[in-house]
Amino acid sequence: MEHGGVLCGAELDFSANVSPLGVPEGVLAAVRAAAETADRYPDPECRALRTALAKEHGVPIEWILCGAGAAELIYRLCLAERPKRALLPAPAFSEYEKALRTSLCGEIAFFSLPAFPEERSRNEARNGVGDRERAAQSLDELRALIGRSDAQGETLVFLCQPNNPTGLSLPRGGLKHLLRLCRDRHCRLVVDECFVPFTDDPGALTLLRELAKYPELVILRAFTKLYGMAGLRLGCALSSDTALLARMRISGPPWSVSGVAQAAGLAALKEKDYVNRVRALIASERPRVYRALLSLGLEVIPGEANFLLFRGPKGLAEKLLKKGIAIRPCGNFRGLDERCYRVCLRTREENDRLIADLGEVLMYGR
Amino acid sequence: MEHGGVLCGAELDFSANVSPLGVPEGVLAAVRAAAETADRYPDPECRALRTALAKEHGVPIEWILCGAGAAELIYRLCLAERPKRALLPAPAFSEYEKALRTSLCGEIAFFSLPAFPEERSRNEARNGVGDRERAAQSLDELRALIGRSDAQGETLVFLCQPNNPTGLSLPRGGLKHLLRLCRDRHCRLVVDECFVPFTDDPGALTLLRELAKYPELVILRAFTKLYGMAGLRLGCALSSDTALLARMRISGPPWSVSGVAQAAGLAALKEKDYVNRVRALIASERPRVYRALLSLGLEVIPGEANFLLFRGPKGLAEKLLKKGIAIRPCGNFRGLDERCYRVCLRTREENDRLIADLGEVLMYGR
Repeated sequence: MEHGGVLCGAELDFSANVSPLGVPEGVLAAVRAAAETADRYPDPECRALRTALAKEHGVPIEWILCGAGAAELIYRLCLAERPKRALLPAPAFSEYEKALRTSLCGEIAFFSLPAFPEERSRNEARNGVGDRERAAQSLDELRALIGRSDAQGETLVFLCQPNNPTGLSLPRGGLKHLLRLCRDRHCRLVVDECFVPFTDDPGALTLLRELAKYPELVILRAFTKLYGMAGLRLGCALSSDTALLARMRISGPPWSVSGVAQAAGLAALKEKDYVNRVRALIASERPRVYRALLSLGLEVIPGEANFLLFRGPKGLAEKLLKKGIAIRPCGNFRGLDERCYRVCLRTREENDRLIADLGEVLMYGR
Repeated sequence: MEHGGVLCGAELDFSANVSPLGVPEGVLAAVRAAAETADRYPDPECRALRTALAKEHGVPIEWILCGAGAAELIYRLCLAERPKRALLPAPAFSEYEKALRTSLCGEIAFFSLPAFPEERSRNEARNGVGDRERAAQSLDELRALIGRSDAQGETLVFLCQPNNPTGLSLPRGGLKHLLRLCRDRHCRLVVDECFVPFTDDPGALTLLRELAKYPELVILRAFTKLYGMAGLRLGCALSSDTALLARMRISGPPWSVSGVAQAAGLAALKEKDYVNRVRALIASERPRVYRALLSLGLEVIPGEANFLLFRGPKGLAEKLLKKGIAIRPCGNFRGLDERCYRVCLRTREENDRLIADLGEVLMYGR
């Protein structure tokens, strides 16, 4: 169970990386109002929502395609592109690989992202290679893979910034170099920016301003996480390659974005205060929980998003669940093992409860 | 615009085949309540809803897969099956063909369904060949196509009962023969039963009772139409071939059915009184509107569902739209032309308004 918190009857769900502040009031009101007209088919073109998104992101409306969550857009993208070859980070969100398999992608190669030192190389760790160096190595590895491509124009690269489940991002300078390489080699570069709004400086991390220059670039964004809308299913893809967006549109049913989700999305974009509160909370809780986990003797990755990846003893998730707390075991991520866990950041009180219960389990074994 | 009523600002939308009684009260309440927990990821297995559906349809829960409307399940089915060859009725719902193209189906053959006599053969009409005979001919045509198949086990057949946009169904006896033929030739038979609940005798028309005997059979059902839930996106596929359902599950994102839709679906299944009222209304309005359209001098197909297909002068839809009424022009259906229109059945007063305005347009040309 990937997001099993609620399903397993946990009181507190740290397994899903969503906003800790619940559904914004404006979104709640919009869903209630939209329910009244839920007998109508939704606008398959999501015009009102795309108009608002275009304003939000400073791009033309034609560069936006909405979907039932970023996950649906990943499938549409793979089906629209049908790449012969794909390059995927590891560890990463599992839907990239699953969507590529559905589109019968023949060759999937993986490049490793910084995670726990030993996962890449025990020697590097001993030699004091830091996160920044490892990020540069990841980019080198990816660039070498792209360079090795025979099938020019038929390679698709997925990246997630900051990455799920590590929470780390690759340096923006390196990404711009990567963008130029992708343009030269006619590779498609998909950057999943679902967690960008949770970072301390979203404007510095996002590649939104590169869309005009690089039609090879596709950016994915979700409402799921930032606006606490996981149960409503809404996301969008942004690209200046409008022909690609047109192919994605016909690579799935026309009404995939429900009318309720469209209304909710429109309301969410007005929730500036809610977003500020979420961002302030994450900014203050991230370093606090990071230090608390370290002080419990766990190996923790200094993630930049609204979740943290750590390594500890096996069986932690099961033991915490008995205390009513769900965390995400990460053993099924490529490159991680069953000692790895991901926790999202929630409110201060909830995070304290997590740390206290985690401390108890680590000390008493239950 | 396929379901353009609301979007074009029409007062009355006869273009979408949904329940005329709006969103049921219980569904409204369920959506409002579900909004509160919309920050949680939905259950990807839709367990509560599938349990209720299993009881409703008298099948094991393992035979059910839920999707974001029947349309999404059509895409998953084609991607899971990847048939070399497909046989499609014409005219029919356009998503069958679009989903097959997305799954790169190499060969799509069409068999004609009864529509307007001339569409099949002017001679037959002159010779007094009736609907029943034409239905039998359609089945013969389909059986011949299946018999001609070299690619055993790699052919997928779509049927819609009653068919959209004609509203006619093929005789159940003929379908049982077809099921046996599909079993012998290892063909997959997909029967879209989205409109079965609107017919006068759903129990006699549905193939639900054949699921156990024929694992080749897949039945599609939707909440969209019967429960006025087009804006919420919910449908299900039923089959005793659980391996197929498992492949369909991984042929798209795991959380395609929103939490709000799952809650709405559970509430809808309790709306027995609402369903009875919808069915009674359709049963009384169908023959009344049919006769009224005939008396306006239009050629009307005696459909069995909650909509009627008729043929009249070109430009009717545009002229009606100026009066605030949206109907569905059917010129883009294979086998139909721009003189064909589909109208759904709404309340008595609304249908009277349609007939009055249609009469005016036919008499005065505006």
